[in-house]
Amino acid sequence: MEITQSFLNQLPLQDKAAIVCGHHFWFTHENLKYGIKKVMMTDGPSGLRKQSSSGDALGINNSVQAVSFPASALTACSFDRRSIEALGEHLGQAARAEQISLLLGPGVNIKRSPLAGRNFEYFSEDPYLTGEMGVAYVNGVQSQHVGVSVKHFAANNRENQRFTASSDVDERSLREIYLAAFEKIVKKAAPATLMCSYNALNGTLNSQNHWLLTDVLRQEWGFDGLVMSDWGAVADHTAAIKAGLDLEMPGKGAESEQEIIDAVHDGTLDEHQLDNSVRRVLRTVHQWPAPESSMDYDLEEQHQFARQLAANSMVLLKNKNQTLPIDQNETVAVLGELAVKPRFQGGGSSHVNAYRVSIPYDEISQRSNAIYGQGYQLADETTHEALIEQALEVAKDADKVIIFAGYPESYESEGFDKQKMTLPTNQIELIKAVSQMGKPVVVVLQNGSAVEMPWIDQVSAVLETYLAGETVGEATADVLYGDVNPSGKLAETFPLKLEDNPTFGTFGMDHDHERYHEGIYVGYRYYDVKQKNVLFPFGYGLSYTKFDYQNIRIRVTGNRVRVQFDVTNVGDRSGQAVAEIYVANQVSEVEKPIRELKNFDKVDLAPGETRTVTAILTDRDLSWYNQDQGRWQCDAGNYAIQIGTSSRNLVLSQVIKFTPIRQPHVQITENTYVGELQKYPELQSALIDSGLDAVIQRVTQESDSARLLENMPLRAGVMIGIDRAMVSRFLQLANQNNGYNG
Amino acid sequence: MEITQSFLNQLPLQDKAAIVCGHHFWFTHENLKYGIKKVMMTDGPSGLRKQSSSGDALGINNSVQAVSFPASALTACSFDRRSIEALGEHLGQAARAEQISLLLGPGVNIKRSPLAGRNFEYFSEDPYLTGEMGVAYVNGVQSQHVGVSVKHFAANNRENQRFTASSDVDERSLREIYLAAFEKIVKKAAPATLMCSYNALNGTLNSQNHWLLTDVLRQEWGFDGLVMSDWGAVADHTAAIKAGLDLEMPGKGAESEQEIIDAVHDGTLDEHQLDNSVRRVLRTVHQWPAPESSMDYDLEEQHQFARQLAANSMVLLKNKNQTLPIDQNETVAVLGELAVKPRFQGGGSSHVNAYRVSIPYDEISQRSNAIYGQGYQLADETTHEALIEQALEVAKDADKVIIFAGYPESYESEGFDKQKMTLPTNQIELIKAVSQMGKPVVVVLQNGSAVEMPWIDQVSAVLETYLAGETVGEATADVLYGDVNPSGKLAETFPLKLEDNPTFGTFGMDHDHERYHEGIYVGYRYYDVKQKNVLFPFGYGLSYTKFDYQNIRIRVTGNRVRVQFDVTNVGDRSGQAVAEIYVANQVSEVEKPIRELKNFDKVDLAPGETRTVTAILTDRDLSWYNQDQGRWQCDAGNYAIQIGTSSRNLVLSQVIKFTPIRQPHVQITENTYVGELQKYPELQSALIDSGLDAVIQRVTQESDSARLLENMPLRAGVMIGIDRAMVSRFLQLANQNNGYNG
Repeated sequence: MEITQSFLNQLPLQDKAAIVCGHHFWFTHENLKYGIKKVMMTDGPSGLRKQSSSGDALGINNSVQAVSFPASALTACSFDRRSIEALGEHLGQAARAEQISLLLGPGVNIKRSPLAGRNFEYFSEDPYLTGEMGVAYVNGVQSQHVGVSVKHFAANNRENQRFTASSDVDERSLREIYLAAFEKIVKKAAPATLMCSYNALNGTLNSQNHWLLTDVLRQEWGFDGLVMSDWGAVADHTAAIKAGLDLEMPGKGAESEQEIIDAVHDGTLDEHQLDNSVRRVLRTVHQWPAPESSMDYDLEEQHQFARQLAANSMVLLKNKNQTLPIDQNETVAVLGELAVKPRFQGGGSSHVNAYRVSIPYDEISQRSNAIYGQGYQLADETTHEALIEQALEVAKDADKVIIFAGYPESYESEGFDKQKMTLPTNQIELIKAVSQMGKPVVVVLQNGSAVEMPWIDQVSAVLETYLAGETVGEATADVLYGDVNPSGKLAETFPLKLEDNPTFGTFGMDHDHERYHEGIYVGYRYYDVKQKNVLFPFGYGLSYTKFDYQNIRIRVTGNRVRVQFDVTNVGDRSGQAVAEIYVANQVSEVEKPIRELKNFDKVDLAPGETRTVTAILTDRDLSWYNQDQGRWQCDAGNYAIQIGTSSRNLVLSQVIKFTPIRQPHVQITENTYVGELQKYPELQSALIDSGLDAVIQRVTQESDSARLLENMPLRAGVMIGIDRAMVSRFLQLANQNNGYNG
Repeated sequence: MEITQSFLNQLPLQDKAAIVCGHHFWFTHENLKYGIKKVMMTDGPSGLRKQSSSGDALGINNSVQAVSFPASALTACSFDRRSIEALGEHLGQAARAEQISLLLGPGVNIKRSPLAGRNFEYFSEDPYLTGEMGVAYVNGVQSQHVGVSVKHFAANNRENQRFTASSDVDERSLREIYLAAFEKIVKKAAPATLMCSYNALNGTLNSQNHWLLTDVLRQEWGFDGLVMSDWGAVADHTAAIKAGLDLEMPGKGAESEQEIIDAVHDGTLDEHQLDNSVRRVLRTVHQWPAPESSMDYDLEEQHQFARQLAANSMVLLKNKNQTLPIDQNETVAVLGELAVKPRFQGGGSSHVNAYRVSIPYDEISQRSNAIYGQGYQLADETTHEALIEQALEVAKDADKVIIFAGYPESYESEGFDKQKMTLPTNQIELIKAVSQMGKPVVVVLQNGSAVEMPWIDQVSAVLETYLAGETVGEATADVLYGDVNPSGKLAETFPLKLEDNPTFGTFGMDHDHERYHEGIYVGYRYYDVKQKNVLFPFGYGLSYTKFDYQNIRIRVTGNRVRVQFDVTNVGDRSGQAVAEIYVANQVSEVEKPIRELKNFDKVDLAPGETRTVTAILTDRDLSWYNQDQGRWQCDAGNYAIQIGTSSRNLVLSQVIKFTPIRQPHVQITENTYVGELQKYPELQSALIDSGLDAVIQRVTQESDSARLLENMPLRAGVMIGIDRAMVSRFLQLANQNNGYNG
């Protein structure tokens, strides 16, 4: 429905002001007189958090029961667009059943620091992977006629002082890293709404940032949906409306409305600007109506889907001597309080009142002989010798030991950042003590974000389950016992230690500013360019079978690059291979990552089976953002196309020469360096005819200063005896004849 | 002399245009009709480079003989203001004798990357040390009635593409790191001129940067001297004059003049703006006149001074088992071509036609029995087994082996950046081979900038001599044989490897931009905050004696902090101790270094002697630059005053509470975080009276979300049940009663 101007003209100012404010925490304003219905929205990136009574934004009060799906930190590791789309479908179905019009998710911010409190809600440190996951998720939800709110727009990468701190980021890094997933989702999946984040960007609050909310989002990307604020993100409602924000959530009630009314009356706010926001709210309400009453839906089916998704996303990090999978005839010791009180979801607005939580120890007990020992307590970090002694006693007769470890809930949540990235001391002590028994030790991790593992060499196997959702017990057991062959890949780098991360020492240090020192070098882009060893690289994960990669074929057609290669399962059990396609730009004379993920595919292979992977890259995939010119730039030259099983294990590689169809102009100017002239054979005649060549030859021969020419621009040529007339003559000749168009 | 407006009004436009252009490469324009004399300027940070015939800016053509003093990379290690002032006096004396009015130096840029081609001409990675050295140098030169040109203004930290690349630096880092030394020199030493550098700053060429050349330099700092361009730095002469540049050097002849004439005619340039530059050129010419004819001066005395300065600046980096000093009865093997062809000065504009170069091997031979072996050739890096065999043979009968190693001239010069920071392969091979003989090996280094030393554990002693000037042979021998007890301290960190430097992987990667990712974390500020091990820390250097530090006493009076402590020579030979005074800001809620050098002193002590060091710090020494507010800010709170023998060996420390006399206002606003309110006891009554306290208590008790309050600003209080009226009431009460003035 188009909301006509004449309709808007009828609406009293007070009613318009109400429309751009939220109502009762989760609703838009109803206006029966003008036939405007309210719609309800609810938190839900990993499951519905529909509050039945008094609302809050932080998971403090309870909500209706819903399936708790794995957190995005885990689902991203699936590297499986189809699974994420199915997740979206399930969430959409649940939302619809509960009369929800708008689901507040997915969160597509970039994991910049391992300490960021909200990492568990986000997909990855990589913008390509994040964008692909986000598109799939949004398509899934919206296929069920439920709208999404893609959040938190943008550069919302720390929790401390999150309402006021400014993310200070250069535009190129914003475009390439922090905005890229939003851009892709807007362009490919047409999300109903975006949620504007709390933080400021280079000094301007996002909720008042016209460049972000209007220039980039609407004018460049063509977004025509609604922008709502994160809950409490609006400091100045009038400024927000002017910047392009449409709906203040949850709204400050009468005060918010009066602010708008006063602003229109005193001329601060043009009523046409207000109309734009009103129109977008009404269009959204109309486009995403809720059913009149709740419906039943199959929670059990959702639970089973969640289990598959979790198991297919878990990442096997280490598996020495094929410790895993465990045989049903083996006796296992199951240690650690997390085995019976699993941590399976994050704290804050994504917290779900789970339908049915499965307990890891219970699930393991059903498959083989298992004994439990607490080992440590979650309540604090103190090591109790008695608990460790008891754990050692329990482990004595076991064939294998499984230790459940991870971050307790008090460690990480929305609302504050973490202090460290080590496990609690008492868990580390347990792992060390048990490892000394000489038995195969499997560590199962439950955590929202990367962990240091100083104990890695002392254990046989490590399974990363992140926050696996309510099926944590079943899914973990599925992988441990080999019912599911693990195929997850890390969506973030695990550094050896926090000190190796680019944000170490500066993250959260400034109360008012967060400086993005590392620029485009986030995650593996940083560790790679700085040549740092890591614990586990981005894209890394093991399987119970083995895959072989062969026969890379690349065809360049216009602005498209078709990449093909064959993957074979050379092991003896079925499994899924994730093929990661990286691009290494070898031509552009700018800061650039060593390589960047630009595509991937996941293939299911029976033993011995071979399949061909085909992926398309475009010129945008080979581009960088030229901040000076305000455009994406693709340079003509060499690019290596690299196929990896991780960002650091490249199994196939081929260098292509790529010439974008619209080539940037190269112009010879007074600022061109003399040394550079020799790069262009087509300039030879101009060099000679102008007399420049003779001078260059003389300087090169007469002194040891040939290298100086490399850094001598034409305009400074007087320093080596090039006169001005000669420069002018050369420029004229060069730009006539060199074939480039200035 | 004040140049009156009426005088300027008489001058024809053409004559004015000539005045703002250089003449014949090293001169200002003469104008006999109006009684304007010309003056000559010449390169010379480390010795005069007066060219007698055709000029060039790059050391290609020869110049008159002059003493080659040690490069600033070495003299800074003296940590001795008096010596640097004496160096300035000697340079001024030589300049005067040669009819030079303006000496083009000192260079006070910051060593940001060990690869920067011009590091040898600069003092330090630290702005305080650089500023102090610069002030002493300028005072010394100008005391001889010769003006200086402090260069290269500013943020000129790379050579590749130096005419066009933009240094992209945030303002706080500019102010605290890159501009600080210029500011101090302008304010304390009133230099005759500043030289504007080639590069751009955040996108604007320095020669056209009004903010830099006028707003900051003249208006904020009160500089009333002349700004000249680096040779060839001007791209647009009119834009340069408008930005505040006075003199284009060397000038493009008639073209430069015509540009100005045309600009005035077509209205692009206001003649009053031109007058400002003309006035400043004429005032400078008048203030720093040259003698009518050359005079003789005592080159031999200058040579002897250079020798003392070099020896007192060299840095003893390692001295296991007191390998040094060498006894005159010991037989030494002297290895390496640098022992007979020493590298003692840098390439480019600072290159001097040296008066008398002393050869290390010759000087050593005069003191004890010495045999020479070439060991490697400087011409290339190829290892020749024959040379190594011969060196081993030579070393066979020696008591000790001295290997001369360093960067060949082709490695580093003005005009291009270095590729690596390792010694040439053939030198490393020589060190390794000789070290295996089991004899005490001393490595003497000649280099312009930091070097990796993967071989450090295999040698007994290392003496860093940088580029020691023409007395390289005598000064090195003075230290090796103990005639001079070394007292130099590193003015830059030696990292373990290039990869540890913050610029690794990005330095010089972008043709058009150099991004200063690390911000204020340059040099030791980076290694400290990132907790990285280093090879040798900033401020490090050994002596042949030992010093003890005791009795720190600190008195705070108003905005001044007086620091006193006692230094005792507890060894058995005389020596000079360098006491470094660092400040660790423990209060400001911003990114900040772990500690910063804020003063130092050098004391000469006989064995057993004790002296008291007294140093004054001011509020500026405890300040950081608040970019948001455009001012230096000193916060009230704790500061540790730390006395170190290096930046990582602190021998005394005391925490003081400092309250600047003008305290910044703290105001409670809607953006104040709820968690923060509890910091201020004086707010208790406002909290209780407004009802806020009750809500906070309830939320804290009812949920596990107490930590969420830390990151909840008052304006978002609705999320936890704080109503708007309550917030207003509280703000009113708080700002009435809390004792702070908003």
